[in-house]
Amino acid sequence: MLQISNRGQQMPPSPIRKLVPYAEAAKRKGIHVYHLNIGQPDVETPPAILDAVRKADIKVLEYSHSAGNESYRRKLVQYYKSVGINVTHEEIMITTGGSEAIQFGFFTCLNPGDEVIIPEPFYANYNGFAVAAGVKVVPITSHIENGFALPPIADFEKVITDKTKAIVVCNPNNPTGYLYSREEMEALKTICLKYDLYLFSDEAYREFCYDGEYISALHLEGMEQHAILMDTVSKRYSACGARIGAFVTKNKEVYNTAMKFAQARLSPPGLAQIMGEAAVDLPASYFDEPKAEYMGRRDLLVSRLNAMPGVFCPNPGGAFYAIARLPIDDADVFCQWLLESFSHDNKTVMLAPATGFYGTPGLGKNEVRLAYVLNKHDINEAMDCLQAALEVYPGRVAVAEKNVSQVAG
Amino acid sequence: MLQISNRGQQMPPSPIRKLVPYAEAAKRKGIHVYHLNIGQPDVETPPAILDAVRKADIKVLEYSHSAGNESYRRKLVQYYKSVGINVTHEEIMITTGGSEAIQFGFFTCLNPGDEVIIPEPFYANYNGFAVAAGVKVVPITSHIENGFALPPIADFEKVITDKTKAIVVCNPNNPTGYLYSREEMEALKTICLKYDLYLFSDEAYREFCYDGEYISALHLEGMEQHAILMDTVSKRYSACGARIGAFVTKNKEVYNTAMKFAQARLSPPGLAQIMGEAAVDLPASYFDEPKAEYMGRRDLLVSRLNAMPGVFCPNPGGAFYAIARLPIDDADVFCQWLLESFSHDNKTVMLAPATGFYGTPGLGKNEVRLAYVLNKHDINEAMDCLQAALEVYPGRVAVAEKNVSQVAG
Repeated sequence: MLQISNRGQQMPPSPIRKLVPYAEAAKRKGIHVYHLNIGQPDVETPPAILDAVRKADIKVLEYSHSAGNESYRRKLVQYYKSVGINVTHEEIMITTGGSEAIQFGFFTCLNPGDEVIIPEPFYANYNGFAVAAGVKVVPITSHIENGFALPPIADFEKVITDKTKAIVVCNPNNPTGYLYSREEMEALKTICLKYDLYLFSDEAYREFCYDGEYISALHLEGMEQHAILMDTVSKRYSACGARIGAFVTKNKEVYNTAMKFAQARLSPPGLAQIMGEAAVDLPASYFDEPKAEYMGRRDLLVSRLNAMPGVFCPNPGGAFYAIARLPIDDADVFCQWLLESFSHDNKTVMLAPATGFYGTPGLGKNEVRLAYVLNKHDINEAMDCLQAALEVYPGRVAVAEKNVSQVAG
Repeated sequence: MLQISNRGQQMPPSPIRKLVPYAEAAKRKGIHVYHLNIGQPDVETPPAILDAVRKADIKVLEYSHSAGNESYRRKLVQYYKSVGINVTHEEIMITTGGSEAIQFGFFTCLNPGDEVIIPEPFYANYNGFAVAAGVKVVPITSHIENGFALPPIADFEKVITDKTKAIVVCNPNNPTGYLYSREEMEALKTICLKYDLYLFSDEAYREFCYDGEYISALHLEGMEQHAILMDTVSKRYSACGARIGAFVTKNKEVYNTAMKFAQARLSPPGLAQIMGEAAVDLPASYFDEPKAEYMGRRDLLVSRLNAMPGVFCPNPGGAFYAIARLPIDDADVFCQWLLESFSHDNKTVMLAPATGFYGTPGLGKNEVRLAYVLNKHDINEAMDCLQAALEVYPGRVAVAEKNVSQVAG
């Protein structure tokens, strides 16, 4: 009999997309659904970068260099310099979104059976790339009570084995919005140097840091051979559909090996590379407006959440996500119920159950992720829905206290 | 010590690209290099499909559906119907080039350690995708004497083990240009049904069949659960840099599993999907001109080659490649020598040594692949170079006969 591969069977379905049929059914009933469930910003893609594609003089849309157009990579050298990262164009490889950068990292550095440590909750698709590469994800738990700060070094050391080859961090973090401090990044460096681990650093949200300082893995002195930066233009320029990212490392052997994977798939998308290159020419002030907008939304969202009885939401320092603890029995049931059985003035809200972001079964059952990718008016409406929903949800449970005093940034 | 993964070490470098530094050096010396080494057509990308991108009204370039825009998939249903393939939009998944379709097929259907049979010479990047997936490529040899026809069923049966899970074919073929006949496709069907194998069918060149009939794996009755079509717009519309392909299968379990890999990488390139969708609206007559052009080039190339003493080139039935046997000692040495030590009127030609397309070590040492992606004038000039080169190449060897009588189409 024809069979599906084991990894195909193990491959997790998207935890974010599994509620989509319920959202579609709600919409068919005429209910307006506020989407706080996915990281698709509503911010306009800068018209100038789309214009660059429109104006490009293309006779034959040829394969580019497998590492991406050299002109684009040279531009990115300037961009990275502007955020304090010194790399050459031969240390940058253009990828098909940040996703492909993660894949290249896993395939290049990890053997089947190897282990990567990832602080949970984490970006759910790391699981998928790990399954594809035959790699085991070892989660260590970060906690809502201290805003999802990096777990202490001892927690890493407890799970390190001779199979451990890397740590993956996302900074600022999706799904928690947590921004790692200099001390935390130095702690990661200490562990990586002590145990000879790669540090895969997903920095998709670096432009959106509100409180505190952004520290890149490539800012850490002495980590040049260990650090692999996974990057993307998706969130930076609200161009998620472009599928352009970057794999950046000063480790020559890693770069050259990743290059063989890049050659096998020929080249990254050509039209989108033109966009990416044009984006580097946007004025530095370009980020002021989206950043201020996201920060205003964050403040609104977090204050609305914490004003609801039994709800606790730490204040995220970056990205455009927050995880909130709700007085509910089961986040998966609740999020489905919001779409299937609830409406408030003919509106409802779609949230992502946090369970999908934890590697440890059973965690996140009373937590949801909210992406503040809607304008303030809509966030307010969505919060009205959530507040009303929590008042009538049959699975509501009592909570002891809010732990506001323990909130970290 | 930090280490590269085993698969990273095993990953083959691109056999086509390894000569690039020698070509660059030749150019720096002022020598004109005719590139017959890569499948990058010189045919203009249809302006109408680039215009579709230019005119697209995009406010936010969002993620598309992970399977690609539904409007595009519905259009492709019409396209496939026009080539005799009946599929629904739910049997089509848009991929990042044909490359990603191959990856999805391997990851979905094959376990590490499984074997796939591929008639050699074959598209070298299948090796790379196999290494990434931990899969073993088992080559069975096709021969230049009969134009690289499908090896007999007995050759397949000789290498089938309980690890064999699939056969990969490329039709019309890269690198041989061979177009499989109905009888050969039926033979593949017989094997796949008898041994329960998947048939991965790479049909990137279907529009360019010159002699004989194009038979798709999806034309084969009874193969609905076995056939997986890997497709791309790269060659069809001379849009290699777009990176848009398709994974097409009527096997629901395979489709749904591949979809999980598609969800992990979020979506295929957005701008290029607009191009692909617009391409379906090109008039059917669009292909007349490039097809006639390629056919004229093929006729010229093959007749020039066969007119050279000691050279034999079967007449390819499709695609835009030919493999020629030359009176040389070592194709890798010869191709490098062409760039490093030879010029004719200050010109030379870059060819791909066929060794990189064989899985069996030692085969293809007196063969080269030529891509007829240059206009007839340039092909003539390139053939002048090759002819002159063969007269003075120090590693020239005598050959017995040309076997022209055995040429198959």
